[in-house]
Amino acid sequence: MTSQDLNSLKVSRDRLLTDLHYTCQWGTGKRWGENTTDTGMRRLALSDTDKQARDWFVETTKAAGCTVTIDAMGNIFAVRPGKRSGPPTFAGSHLDTQPSGGRYDGILGVHAAVEMLHVLNENHIETEFPIGVVNWTNEEGARFPISMVSSGVWAGQIPLATAHDLVEVTPPRTETLSAALARIGYNGPTEVSHTAIPMAAHFELHIEQGPILESWNRKIGIVTAVQAYRWFTLDVRGRDAHTGTTPLSARADALLTAAKMILHSHRIATKLGCVASTGILTLEPGSTNTIPGHVRFSLDIRARNDGILDKAEEALRRDFAVIAAGEDVGGLNDGATPGKACQVEWRTDSVSSEIDFHPDCIKCVTESAEGVFGAQAKELTAEMVSGAGHDSVYTSKVCPTSMIFIPCKNGVSHNPEEYSTPEDCALGAQVLLGAVLRYDRLRAEKAGREY
Amino acid sequence: MTSQDLNSLKVSRDRLLTDLHYTCQWGTGKRWGENTTDTGMRRLALSDTDKQARDWFVETTKAAGCTVTIDAMGNIFAVRPGKRSGPPTFAGSHLDTQPSGGRYDGILGVHAAVEMLHVLNENHIETEFPIGVVNWTNEEGARFPISMVSSGVWAGQIPLATAHDLVEVTPPRTETLSAALARIGYNGPTEVSHTAIPMAAHFELHIEQGPILESWNRKIGIVTAVQAYRWFTLDVRGRDAHTGTTPLSARADALLTAAKMILHSHRIATKLGCVASTGILTLEPGSTNTIPGHVRFSLDIRARNDGILDKAEEALRRDFAVIAAGEDVGGLNDGATPGKACQVEWRTDSVSSEIDFHPDCIKCVTESAEGVFGAQAKELTAEMVSGAGHDSVYTSKVCPTSMIFIPCKNGVSHNPEEYSTPEDCALGAQVLLGAVLRYDRLRAEKAGREY
Ligand SMILES: [Zn+2]
Ligand SMILES: [Zn+2]
Repeated sequence: MTSQDLNSLKVSRDRLLTDLHYTCQWGTGKRWGENTTDTGMRRLALSDTDKQARDWFVETTKAAGCTVTIDAMGNIFAVRPGKRSGPPTFAGSHLDTQPSGGRYDGILGVHAAVEMLHVLNENHIETEFPIGVVNWTNEEGARFPISMVSSGVWAGQIPLATAHDLVEVTPPRTETLSAALARIGYNGPTEVSHTAIPMAAHFELHIEQGPILESWNRKIGIVTAVQAYRWFTLDVRGRDAHTGTTPLSARADALLTAAKMILHSHRIATKLGCVASTGILTLEPGSTNTIPGHVRFSLDIRARNDGILDKAEEALRRDFAVIAAGEDVGGLNDGATPGKACQVEWRTDSVSSEIDFHPDCIKCVTESAEGVFGAQAKELTAEMVSGAGHDSVYTSKVCPTSMIFIPCKNGVSHNPEEYSTPEDCALGAQVLLGAVLRYDRLRAEKAGREY
Repeated sequence: MTSQDLNSLKVSRDRLLTDLHYTCQWGTGKRWGENTTDTGMRRLALSDTDKQARDWFVETTKAAGCTVTIDAMGNIFAVRPGKRSGPPTFAGSHLDTQPSGGRYDGILGVHAAVEMLHVLNENHIETEFPIGVVNWTNEEGARFPISMVSSGVWAGQIPLATAHDLVEVTPPRTETLSAALARIGYNGPTEVSHTAIPMAAHFELHIEQGPILESWNRKIGIVTAVQAYRWFTLDVRGRDAHTGTTPLSARADALLTAAKMILHSHRIATKLGCVASTGILTLEPGSTNTIPGHVRFSLDIRARNDGILDKAEEALRRDFAVIAAGEDVGGLNDGATPGKACQVEWRTDSVSSEIDFHPDCIKCVTESAEGVFGAQAKELTAEMVSGAGHDSVYTSKVCPTSMIFIPCKNGVSHNPEEYSTPEDCALGAQVLLGAVLRYDRLRAEKAGREY
């Protein structure tokens, strides 16, 4: 198969979108617009609606000539045979959504992989090696509270028992992951393992979930890496006191101190070219006329590499101690009243190092995009780093992996209004198809050289 | 009765403290030290334990020769007759506590007033006019969510129906105030009104609930006024976004914006010599990897007078709009990344103007303290402004009123560890006794002049 031949294979935008919206009948969420498909999704992992989408996936891939394997995490692997045997080159993503999610996050990546099967079949293509389509279980971590848990078990990074024992965090908060698997009949017999179910490579098409491609006017993100991140919980302890009777100078105000820390973390991130965010903040005791004696907040810092994160964490640990002591950092205390000291404690919740995707996979995506866009490829594509985690993070630990991003409107995701245009969805699927087939050819070339 | 005579009347420190700790058997709270009385209090208004303390109050004041009247808010008025009839000069406070309160807030003021009765009786003093002791219902607002509600109804400032219909905010959150009154038998037959139950004056001894007297090394605070305060709820709305995929420049971060506002409110308070505090802050959606799109926080600002508060509110309304728009105020944006605008909305929850206590009452307290401390009065007393509200705020609207403060350890109150020394409690009771008797004499002098 020549590059010319590869470029002549076209995904069907209509079939892709029709199928995608068809499966979104299972778990339809909040309406936000007037069109039939202007609703979000609420399809929690291993729920009844997830089972319906899975059943569609199994039937559809079987009908497309695939052998379907289900492992003990409910991951579904559909494999279409090639000229020779060997680990399949996979494309895929996840069918589960956030409780208040959209129609594209994860779902698009699975449907684009299924569309690839249809294109291969209707063009009677026999690939060199088998081609696979995968649906990973509970990627979101929204029902069972570890994200990407099933690719994590498959990659040998998370113990199976840990995953099976997870209890749902959504109401009624009673079912374990293993019980949910059994209830919907997706507790497969196959060992959850990259040796039991090997992959030659893993490609994942996904919406960007951020505003970068849109602001750059690019159609395709060639994802070369995933940001490093670290999650912390901070406890700031001062002293409860009456708002009316306690002069500013006598206060150990845990919330004022936390406010300074949150602003300072933003300044440090600006300085170091990374991001820092607080998404959770709780305080005690919580009444209008009581200065909070205790504030707890989350801190999520992310950077291109571990070196930058090391610097950010070091600066924040040093400066938060100074802020808690009531001393100045960067003019925060300008025009403020010196008060009493607070204490600050750090807990590290999660550490994830930078991930570099595989050069062979990145090359196949780049060449595929060149095939799609021709002379415009430089203007319409961009290499980029993923800010969020995906199943591809875990697969990259045991097999060549990369990702393809398409723009989503206003960068909105994990929200019913998440939206990518049919054109962009189809472009992403087209680039995915070309990348998988190029990887298949690359393997054959390498194997040929080895003969 | 000469000043000499007045100064010879002594409260009993032992009886005062023994009685106080005796009634703290009803509603004993959290232990914080090794002594028998080293516990806090949890005596919610109109609870079973409040009923027991009330029963003790009624029995004790009746035994001390008082006539007891209970009104339809459960306020208890105990009156000891004088030489002539007329509205009694009252002393009193409240027996209810915070859910996690101490042994002195309110309780000391009632016990000091009861001790006054004992001193008058054992010295066979016949006052010019009747002398009263009052226990106000639900001062704390901790069970039924309006503070000082019963003195408020009595003073004609709060409708009786509003008060009766309050539903408890403490578990099980089912009982109304009127049902609670009926259940413990304190729904008295008398109209709740300053005309039905008139007071010639109202004196209240209270712990300071702040650190000022302690830091100044003063034993008695002569309270001349109560701060003005205003309570607001602020809503800051930005946009939920993924912490990993959203660059700092693309964020409308409601929490970062609120953090700047909280720091700025502290700076404005510093500049204007008032206080600003945030005691409640909630956010949505609340996950580590989502930038909050909505933050709600309380803002409590207090100042010596309404003029300063007007300036503070004006400055904050102006500057919060600028901060929400993403523009700089006072260097908050130094070293920060310009982001997207948020919206801010203000809701006014409560407005309380400055209260000036009555010069006659302040004079009686000052002279009483001079009687107690002699030449040391200047060094051991100080005029001061109350930072917190008390039932005396409402009584001052319809009768001459003032308050007496004593130090409390580290300024701590609304906390089990709230503590004042027996010496200071007795000094406070002594000044209260002298102030009430001086006021009684003052009335007689004025009445004499009127004959
Ligand atoms: Zn996803
Ligand atoms: Zn009180």
